[in-house]
Amino acid sequence: MDERAALALLDGELEAAGDDAAVVDGLVVTTDMLHERTDFPNGTTRYTAGWRAVGASVSDVAAMGAKPTAAVAAYAAPEFDRDELLAFVRGASDVCELVGTEYVGGDLDGHDEFTVSTTVIGRTDDPVRRRGAQPGDVVCVTGTLGRSAAALEFFDRAIDDDDAFLERANDLFRFPPRIAAGRALAPHATAMMDSSDGLARSLHQLAEASDCGFAIEADRLPIDNAVYDVTDDEDEALELATTFGEDFELVATLPEAALSAVRAATDVPLSVIGSVREADDGLTMDGEPLADRGYTHG
Amino acid sequence: MDERAALALLDGELEAAGDDAAVVDGLVVTTDMLHERTDFPNGTTRYTAGWRAVGASVSDVAAMGAKPTAAVAAYAAPEFDRDELLAFVRGASDVCELVGTEYVGGDLDGHDEFTVSTTVIGRTDDPVRRRGAQPGDVVCVTGTLGRSAAALEFFDRAIDDDDAFLERANDLFRFPPRIAAGRALAPHATAMMDSSDGLARSLHQLAEASDCGFAIEADRLPIDNAVYDVTDDEDEALELATTFGEDFELVATLPEAALSAVRAATDVPLSVIGSVREADDGLTMDGEPLADRGYTHG
Repeated sequence: MDERAALALLDGELEAAGDDAAVVDGLVVTTDMLHERTDFPNGTTRYTAGWRAVGASVSDVAAMGAKPTAAVAAYAAPEFDRDELLAFVRGASDVCELVGTEYVGGDLDGHDEFTVSTTVIGRTDDPVRRRGAQPGDVVCVTGTLGRSAAALEFFDRAIDDDDAFLERANDLFRFPPRIAAGRALAPHATAMMDSSDGLARSLHQLAEASDCGFAIEADRLPIDNAVYDVTDDEDEALELATTFGEDFELVATLPEAALSAVRAATDVPLSVIGSVREADDGLTMDGEPLADRGYTHG
Repeated sequence: MDERAALALLDGELEAAGDDAAVVDGLVVTTDMLHERTDFPNGTTRYTAGWRAVGASVSDVAAMGAKPTAAVAAYAAPEFDRDELLAFVRGASDVCELVGTEYVGGDLDGHDEFTVSTTVIGRTDDPVRRRGAQPGDVVCVTGTLGRSAAALEFFDRAIDDDDAFLERANDLFRFPPRIAAGRALAPHATAMMDSSDGLARSLHQLAEASDCGFAIEADRLPIDNAVYDVTDDEDEALELATTFGEDFELVATLPEAALSAVRAATDVPLSVIGSVREADDGLTMDGEPLADRGYTHG
């Protein structure tokens, strides 16, 4: 059974599951586990790891249109190095500060592989779900796509620890979770999730939850400039931006008339990338079926 | 740097840390990570693992005198077996149901070693801390001590998967988190924590946080009957009950006059095991220093 089948199984068991975060009693709560081998490439600093691990869970809270209340992390490693641990905590604290919440610590644990589990709690009286997209709505994405794909390439290119590529990679890896944008979108969005598994997969998940189709226009995708630093090929750039994932941008549907109100409420760029269609119209990009490919988190 | 030194380091960095759970804005939140090798002996069923992993975090909420609101878990394993996953979710859900909260799901993740990270959120307007014990208070412990120590011995004795020892071990491993007792203690307790690292270590941590001493009487310790099924030696039984840990009972200090009110408010047995002394009097059992030994969670 792969991860998605297992998640589907769990969704059947648990009423509150099946969205970016569970909703209980006015609270949203989300948890993620990240591992060195699959999530932190060689050269990822512990500061970046702390930022990114906590940021990933903050992003799930953003995707519900909620305001984060607190973040915790369980930090497991073969040994506890003072500088590494402090760097991790500072990364975690800094990403929390950026979005106006508090990193309140967590658990420490001996483990063969550096592994981090993060949980973020948020509040909202009116969470935005994955279901609710209406034909005629526009589809938007915050920020840019492909940052993490470019970061991976820079991690690969780095030769030693002082490498400028490493700095660039770490910088790209420390994404800003879209809390403010999520709050601006929340009153208007009919459906929302984050793009952690890639834009294509996120669209498929929204389509399934909302029972709708999407017509996406490739030339409207906000591909990050960093992608063009790692490839000159437009097809490859598009592929990286749509299927690589791990960008933690928000993908939302909303009535076109609400766009100006949302844009007035946040500084984060919001790109319209297409429109919501009937389920029978399928999920297309430039008229061709957009495959359900993406990053299945290992 | 060992786990305790690292935690001390983190406590200096993070204001909300340093208790069983962090307190933020009327919420308590706690997270734990457990691994197959160190926390789930051979023969632990996934049902028991789900119960115990979530129960460990529920226990931290109980130790703050709070009421749990929701529980989540991140489940990492080399493969996702349908029956194992369902058993885990049922164990997690059942322990939540026992204490009147909701298991709302979580994350799934591929990983070499079966690893679970759990987070539980609770609410309280008046959390009970580790600091606050006053000389003259009595020291109490809920339930019995040594269940997990006995369980480990039964796991060791089991020969095959059908073994009756395994059933006994799993049964002992599925502890009831002391939410109701914690709620009954909360209005009166001057300090409280759970005994997950063993009674001796818990007392040392309470003594340090409260700047006090303790005089414990060995013959008042509520040693679980199961301990006497694994040893006939009274000294060994006492050792298992005081230092093995993982029992997830509450250790609390309170004015003696409040005892009857607490006992009237909960069905959980509450044993007075000694009294709070001045810091200069040290931490003793039957007049002898009680060493700071216990389970440092691996």
